[in-house]
Amino acid sequence: MLYIIGLGLGDEKDITLRGLEAVKSCEKVYMEAYTSLLSFGLSSDGISTLEKLYGRPIILADRETVEEKADDILSDARRSNVAFLVVGDPFGATTHTDLVVRAKKLGVDVKIVYNASVMNAVGVCGLQLYRYGETVSIPFFTETWRPDSFYDKIKRNRDLGLHTLCLLDIRVKEPTLESLCRGKKQYEPPRYMTIKIAIEQLLEVEQTRGLSVYNEDTKCVGFARLGSEDQTVIAGTMKQLLTSEFGLPLHCLVIVGETHPVEEEMLISYTIGEDAK
Amino acid sequence: MLYIIGLGLGDEKDITLRGLEAVKSCEKVYMEAYTSLLSFGLSSDGISTLEKLYGRPIILADRETVEEKADDILSDARRSNVAFLVVGDPFGATTHTDLVVRAKKLGVDVKIVYNASVMNAVGVCGLQLYRYGETVSIPFFTETWRPDSFYDKIKRNRDLGLHTLCLLDIRVKEPTLESLCRGKKQYEPPRYMTIKIAIEQLLEVEQTRGLSVYNEDTKCVGFARLGSEDQTVIAGTMKQLLTSEFGLPLHCLVIVGETHPVEEEMLISYTIGEDAK
Repeated sequence: MLYIIGLGLGDEKDITLRGLEAVKSCEKVYMEAYTSLLSFGLSSDGISTLEKLYGRPIILADRETVEEKADDILSDARRSNVAFLVVGDPFGATTHTDLVVRAKKLGVDVKIVYNASVMNAVGVCGLQLYRYGETVSIPFFTETWRPDSFYDKIKRNRDLGLHTLCLLDIRVKEPTLESLCRGKKQYEPPRYMTIKIAIEQLLEVEQTRGLSVYNEDTKCVGFARLGSEDQTVIAGTMKQLLTSEFGLPLHCLVIVGETHPVEEEMLISYTIGEDAK
Repeated sequence: MLYIIGLGLGDEKDITLRGLEAVKSCEKVYMEAYTSLLSFGLSSDGISTLEKLYGRPIILADRETVEEKADDILSDARRSNVAFLVVGDPFGATTHTDLVVRAKKLGVDVKIVYNASVMNAVGVCGLQLYRYGETVSIPFFTETWRPDSFYDKIKRNRDLGLHTLCLLDIRVKEPTLESLCRGKKQYEPPRYMTIKIAIEQLLEVEQTRGLSVYNEDTKCVGFARLGSEDQTVIAGTMKQLLTSEFGLPLHCLVIVGETHPVEEEMLISYTIGEDAK
């Protein structure tokens, strides 16, 4: 059996009882390392907290490992229980359908253990999840690569009065350009897009495209470390959020659409310059 | 402190370690009874399973109770820890912003414990969550009340190639018409919309409105008891799903938009008449 187990968003305490029971029944435990383990402590310390809780060693698996070793993982899973741990939910922002499809093709049983994902946890700000349009991803711009397809999606959402969840780029284990040229892989340090960079890029694209989809007075909600003990949620205009202190990653951003009174009431308690009263 | 704790979708095992720790620290434990407790055993048995796990008695709170007793709940929460348990996620399909807003106004600290919601767990079928448009709710039609605003939303989603999650009506503790006339409340037995009824209503509205948004050959995915041990996921046309056996509630339905190859591959394993190979 292959268990794909969502760990939730905060730390080791966010696994479900079902998930913990499953992982304890497994001979091998892999943990995906291609989104972000930050909140779970990417350090050896963090992993050992999990190992202690599970009573099992954990094999960190980046995207390459999963691709290269999928056959081994799945042939193990045919004989015994194997866990594949995923931060958030197995089918949330980063999906693991590839592994499931391969498992099904090989006739390996798969069980999913659901958990919270950034896709539903943003509900905490009071904007109702069913009033969101299509989710967009904002990639790090480079000198030569400044893709802006998110702009059209945000436009469509805003034309309909819908909120937009912006997932911000995560670069983990990106090979350096130099190493690619030399054919020997070396990796860039991990990079996580901040709300500040996201808003700067959003405003740059508005400048270029000029369809007045949003501007620096557009209301947004910024989230940092959603689900962890020190999560930060701040509502304000793009301009206000540019100078707000969100601290460590991960960050994400919601561009607010038309709001209902009950959404407004809840947003107020997160709004800059408003007391939570 | 008021803890609002998501219980997840399956049964008592879907609470997180963080949630369990919080509920065990609480003097009073309320559980919302206005969505569905079916999967958690609405019977006294189900509740006692939870009570045993938590080591605390549970007070079932329907919407009226929460509205009437909110002041009591919140004044308790000012002096001691109080838990409010919610099936799924606190801000998923049914939101609990009212209670949070009231708590914040009274200066009561609130902590949220996230969990899986139907809004992210539908990801299991392989359709990517960021490719969904606005979520729609399908209410039970009556002789005289046949609202169809969901039709326009589905049209907009389909025009953009996006998937649509349809949440199906739940009627719990609806006063009977007779009892309303007599001024003494009696309640209808709970009703949960099945996929069959949802599709019948969808097709009826297409007949009336006639904008060719979908038809009986439109591809959908039906979900029953998502997150529980016997969850059922079937992909097929509306016509096929009309005669598919989904069993007990809760049901929900996704109308499939344009698909990417990786989404297709995953859907195949759920498709009627296709082997999961």
